[in-house]
Amino acid sequence: MAVIKAEIRSGSYFDSAVLMQLQRSLGQLEGIQDAGVVMGTEENKEILAHIDLLSPEVQASKPDDMVVVVRAENEEAANNALGSVDELLSRKKSNVDQEYRPKSLEGAAEMLPDASWVLISVAGRFAARVAHQALDLGKHVFLFSDNVSVEEEISLKNKAAEKGLLVMGPDCGTAMISGIGLGFANKIRKGPIGVVAAAGTGLQQVTTRIHQLGSGITHGIGTGGRDLKEPIGAATFLMALDVLARDPETKVITLVSKPPAPKVAEKVIRQARKINKPVVINFIARKPTTRQDGNLYFATGMDDAAALSVQLAENTPDVTSGPELPLDKFAEGQRYFRGLFSGGTLAYEAQFLLEEFVPRVWANAPIKKENQLKDSLSSEEHTIVDLGEDEFTVGRLHPMMDNEMRIRRLMEEARDPEVAVIMLDVVIGYGSHPDPASELAPAIKNAKTLAEKAGRYLEVVVVATGTDEDPQVLDTQVEQLRDAGAWVSSSNEEVVKYAGSILQALNQEAEKEYVFTPIDLSTLKKDLEAINVGLESFAENLVDQETPVIHVEWKPPAGGNDKLMSILDRMKKFS
Amino acid sequence: MAVIKAEIRSGSYFDSAVLMQLQRSLGQLEGIQDAGVVMGTEENKEILAHIDLLSPEVQASKPDDMVVVVRAENEEAANNALGSVDELLSRKKSNVDQEYRPKSLEGAAEMLPDASWVLISVAGRFAARVAHQALDLGKHVFLFSDNVSVEEEISLKNKAAEKGLLVMGPDCGTAMISGIGLGFANKIRKGPIGVVAAAGTGLQQVTTRIHQLGSGITHGIGTGGRDLKEPIGAATFLMALDVLARDPETKVITLVSKPPAPKVAEKVIRQARKINKPVVINFIARKPTTRQDGNLYFATGMDDAAALSVQLAENTPDVTSGPELPLDKFAEGQRYFRGLFSGGTLAYEAQFLLEEFVPRVWANAPIKKENQLKDSLSSEEHTIVDLGEDEFTVGRLHPMMDNEMRIRRLMEEARDPEVAVIMLDVVIGYGSHPDPASELAPAIKNAKTLAEKAGRYLEVVVVATGTDEDPQVLDTQVEQLRDAGAWVSSSNEEVVKYAGSILQALNQEAEKEYVFTPIDLSTLKKDLEAINVGLESFAENLVDQETPVIHVEWKPPAGGNDKLMSILDRMKKFS
Repeated sequence: MAVIKAEIRSGSYFDSAVLMQLQRSLGQLEGIQDAGVVMGTEENKEILAHIDLLSPEVQASKPDDMVVVVRAENEEAANNALGSVDELLSRKKSNVDQEYRPKSLEGAAEMLPDASWVLISVAGRFAARVAHQALDLGKHVFLFSDNVSVEEEISLKNKAAEKGLLVMGPDCGTAMISGIGLGFANKIRKGPIGVVAAAGTGLQQVTTRIHQLGSGITHGIGTGGRDLKEPIGAATFLMALDVLARDPETKVITLVSKPPAPKVAEKVIRQARKINKPVVINFIARKPTTRQDGNLYFATGMDDAAALSVQLAENTPDVTSGPELPLDKFAEGQRYFRGLFSGGTLAYEAQFLLEEFVPRVWANAPIKKENQLKDSLSSEEHTIVDLGEDEFTVGRLHPMMDNEMRIRRLMEEARDPEVAVIMLDVVIGYGSHPDPASELAPAIKNAKTLAEKAGRYLEVVVVATGTDEDPQVLDTQVEQLRDAGAWVSSSNEEVVKYAGSILQALNQEAEKEYVFTPIDLSTLKKDLEAINVGLESFAENLVDQETPVIHVEWKPPAGGNDKLMSILDRMKKFS
Repeated sequence: MAVIKAEIRSGSYFDSAVLMQLQRSLGQLEGIQDAGVVMGTEENKEILAHIDLLSPEVQASKPDDMVVVVRAENEEAANNALGSVDELLSRKKSNVDQEYRPKSLEGAAEMLPDASWVLISVAGRFAARVAHQALDLGKHVFLFSDNVSVEEEISLKNKAAEKGLLVMGPDCGTAMISGIGLGFANKIRKGPIGVVAAAGTGLQQVTTRIHQLGSGITHGIGTGGRDLKEPIGAATFLMALDVLARDPETKVITLVSKPPAPKVAEKVIRQARKINKPVVINFIARKPTTRQDGNLYFATGMDDAAALSVQLAENTPDVTSGPELPLDKFAEGQRYFRGLFSGGTLAYEAQFLLEEFVPRVWANAPIKKENQLKDSLSSEEHTIVDLGEDEFTVGRLHPMMDNEMRIRRLMEEARDPEVAVIMLDVVIGYGSHPDPASELAPAIKNAKTLAEKAGRYLEVVVVATGTDEDPQVLDTQVEQLRDAGAWVSSSNEEVVKYAGSILQALNQEAEKEYVFTPIDLSTLKKDLEAINVGLESFAENLVDQETPVIHVEWKPPAGGNDKLMSILDRMKKFS
C-alpha cells in the first residue's frame, strides 16, 4: 500500500523554479509514485488533495510553509526521498555568469547604472514592495508577479504616473521593448507597429502573427490584465498609448485587451481617437459595430488585428481628424437626437450605431424591446421614428413618396428646445418622390430658422441614398439639401457617427482627465539594460538576447514574516 | 375661429396615391388651413387628433371608410372644399399609356403572357388574396403592401416554395431583377454582385454604395423585413440564396437584413457556408466575432458590406470548404470540449469564439459571470480552464514554464467518456519552457491512446504561438505535436472554429431541412415583363425603364366588404 509522507519547512523561501525542479527530482527517485513541492496555501492543498498527496501535516501547513510531500511504494522509499531534499536543493545551478550577486535593488542599480528596467517575478505578496523600490529608483517596472492586490496596483500606478514611469503589470506576462523580450516573449522582427496589450498571450499571439505576415514591431508594451478594469482605469494603458503616439518609428498602434470594463474601454478609445496615426483595436468580447471610424480600426479578433495592422503599416492612410463639430453653437439644454426615417433598415442601423454614443435611443421599431417608444407620435429624449412602419401607412402613401407627414414632424421636433440634432434619410430612385429635396430642403431651412429665432442652433443631418443615374440625380438632391444648411453624406454610418459625436459631447459629463508625467521616449530608444528580481530564468533570457542584466540574489525581508516586514517598512519611512 | 368639417364615404376604395393627391389639392384651396384624407383606422384617427383634424364624425369612422376632413377659416370655405371632392378625384390622370385596362390579374396575364412578375401594392387587407392569385398563375410576386398578417405570409410562402416561385414581401420595398427596379429602386450598374435583403432601404443603401464604388449587381432580391423572423424562418431568403448560388454571373453574394431572429440568422449562415462563392453578411445588430470564416465574410455595417463585396468581386478568392471533420470517429456520447490553456487571452478569445458554436462554456476566468466554473479542478460540460490564473500559480511556476499540471489535467479529461475535443495552447519564446512539445506531444499521444483503448476517439487541437526565430523554433514544435496526432495551427481563431464545428455537429439536433422547388434561373435571366396591381406609379416606373407592364384596374372584390369577400372565396374553392 502506498505511503504518503511530508516535510514542512516553516519560513523557507525558494522561488518557484526551484520548487518545480525539486518536485521533478523527487518524482524520479526509485519507489516514488508522485511528489509535490509547493507553498502551503489553501489552493495548493486542494490541488494536492485532488491528486492524492494530502496528509495531516500537509493539511496543517500555512502559506509561509514550504510543503514537500511524496507518495511512495513503501515507508523506506518515502524516507529516502525526504532525506535527499537538501542535497537536491544544492544541485541548483545558474546560467547567469555574474561574479557578484547584489542582495538588493539598490546594489544592482549601482552595478548597472544605465539599467532603466526592473523585472520582478518574486512571490505575489512581496512583489508590490519590490516594485515600489524600483519606482523610487526611477526605473520602469515589468511586474510579472501575480497575486498582487488591486490596492497595491493602484498605489504603484499612481506613483508611476507621477514619475513618468511604466508599471507593466502586475500579472504582466510579456513585453517587448526595442526588440528585447521581457518575461514570456517571442523573437519578433523590428517593424513599424507598436502594440499596447492588457493581455499577455494576446501580445504574443498578435505579435507572432505580425511576424508571420512579414512585418514587425517597435515596442510591445504590456499593462497587466487588470489595467482596463474600473479600479485601475487604464492607468498604464494611457501612458503607453501616449508614448507610442510620440514615437516617430511607430506608424500604426495596435491595442489588445482581455475583456475590458466597457467604460474604461470607451475612455481608451476616446484617447486613441486624438492620435494622428491609425490605431487598430481588438478588445476581446467588445464586438465591433464598425470597421473604421476616423483613425480607429476595429478588428474582430487577434488574427484580424494582426492582419489589419500589417495592412495599415504597409499602406498607411492619411488619418485626418473627423469633421468639425458645431458644439459652440448650441444653446444650453439642447442635447437630444430625433431621427425621422422613411427607410426601416436605415433607422435600424442608426439605432445600432447610436448605442455607441448615447445610453438609450427610443424607437417605434426598436432593436431591443425595452427601447420601445410609448407613442409613435411623440418623441422622448433620443428618438428614432421609422415613418414607414405599419402604424403610419394604413391607407397612406409611404414616406418615400409623400413627404408631408415627415415635414410636419420635422417642424414639431424643431420646436422642442431640448433637440440638438435632427436626422432625415432621403432615398431617391424609381418609386420615390420625383424630387424630394424640393420639398424637404425648404422645410429644413424653416426648421433651422425657427430654432435660430428661438436663440438655439439646430443641426439637421441627412443620409442621401441614390445614384447619379437615378431620375432625381443624387448630386442635385444633395446640393439642394446642403444649400438649405443640412449636413449631408451618402453613408448612413458617417451621418450617424457625426450626429453621435455631437450628442456624446453635449451629453458628456466633464471627464476627469488622467494627468501623468509623460514617459521619456529616450528610455525606450536606448539599448535595454535591466535588473532582474525573482525567477532567474528571466535573467538568463536577457543574457540569451545579449542584453546586460544584473540578477539580484533576493530573499524576502525579515524572512518573509509579515509583521516584521511591516515594522521594517515603518522604520524606513521614519528614517 | 377655425371650423373642422368632415365627410365620410363608406366602402369607397381609392389607392393611397389618390388619397394623397386629394389631400394636397384640398389643402391648397382658399380658406383651408389643413386637410386630411385617410382611411378611418385607429392609427389614422390618432394622427388626425395629433394635428387637430378630429371631429365627432371622424371619430366614429371605420377602417373601411374614406375620411375627408378639413380645418377651414370659416364654415363656407369648409363646405366649398368638401363640395369639390368629386371634381378633384376626377382630375386624376395617368402616365401609363395603355388602351385597355384589365380588371383582373387573369385578364392582365392573357394580355402579357410572358410576364413572370406581379407587383402588388394594394391595401394590406386585400394584398394576400391578390398574391395568392398571382402564385396560382405561376408568377413571381413582389409584394410591396404592408399590414399583411404573419399567417398570410406563411401561407403565401408555403405555396411559393412548392411552386418554385419568389414571394418578395410582404412589406418588400425594393427589388432589382436583371437591372430593372421594382418598387423603390435605384439605377444600379450591372455587375458581379448578387444581393439578398430582408431590408428595403438596406438593399438600396448597399447597392447604391456598390454603384458609387464603381461596381454593380446581378440581382437584388428583397424578401420582406419579417423573412428572418422565427415564424417565417427565412423561407424566401433561402430560395433566393439558392438561385444566386446557381447563377454563373453572380460572383459574390451579399446578404443584408434588419435585426434577424438569432436562430434564423444561424440557419441562413449554415446554408451560406455550403455555397462555393464568397458570401458577405451584414445582419444589423448581429455583431461579427470574426472577419472571415471559409467563404463567409462578416461586415460591420452596410458601408462595410458594400466595400467588402466590391473588393471580393474585384479579386475573388478561391473559396475552399473548411477542414474535414472527423465526425464518424467519435463514439456515442462524446460531445464536450475541454480547453486547457496556459495563456489567459487565448482562453478568453476561445470562450468568445466558442459561443458561436455551443450554448454555454464554463470557465474559471469567464467573460460572463454566469459561466463561472464551480471548481477550477473539475470540468463540467464544455469547459475552458486557464491554468495561469492566480489560483494555480501561488508558489508554483507558470504553466508556460512547467507542463506538469497541464499534463495531469489532460489525462484526466481524456478519461472522461463525454469529452470529444481537448484544446491546448503551446506558447513558445523566451521565458517559456525550452521545449514544451517534447513533454506535451507524448502526453497527447498517451491521451489519444487511452481514449482509443476505451473505444472512443479523442481530437486534440493545439494553437501554437511563436515564431521561426524563437529559441524553440515554431516549426519544430508543430512537427512534434502533429506527429503525436494533434491538429495544430498558429491561429487561435482557426483552432477554436475547427473545434467549434466539431462540437456543433456532435451537439446539434438534426435540423429539419427546408424543402422547396428551386426557382427556375431562366425567369431571372430573360427580359423582365410585369403586371402591376395597386399603386399606378409603380407601373409608370417600369415604363420609364422601358419594361413591358400591364396595370390592372383593380378594385377590391365585393366592394371591400370582408364578409362578402370570404363568401366569394369559399364559393371559388368549391366551384
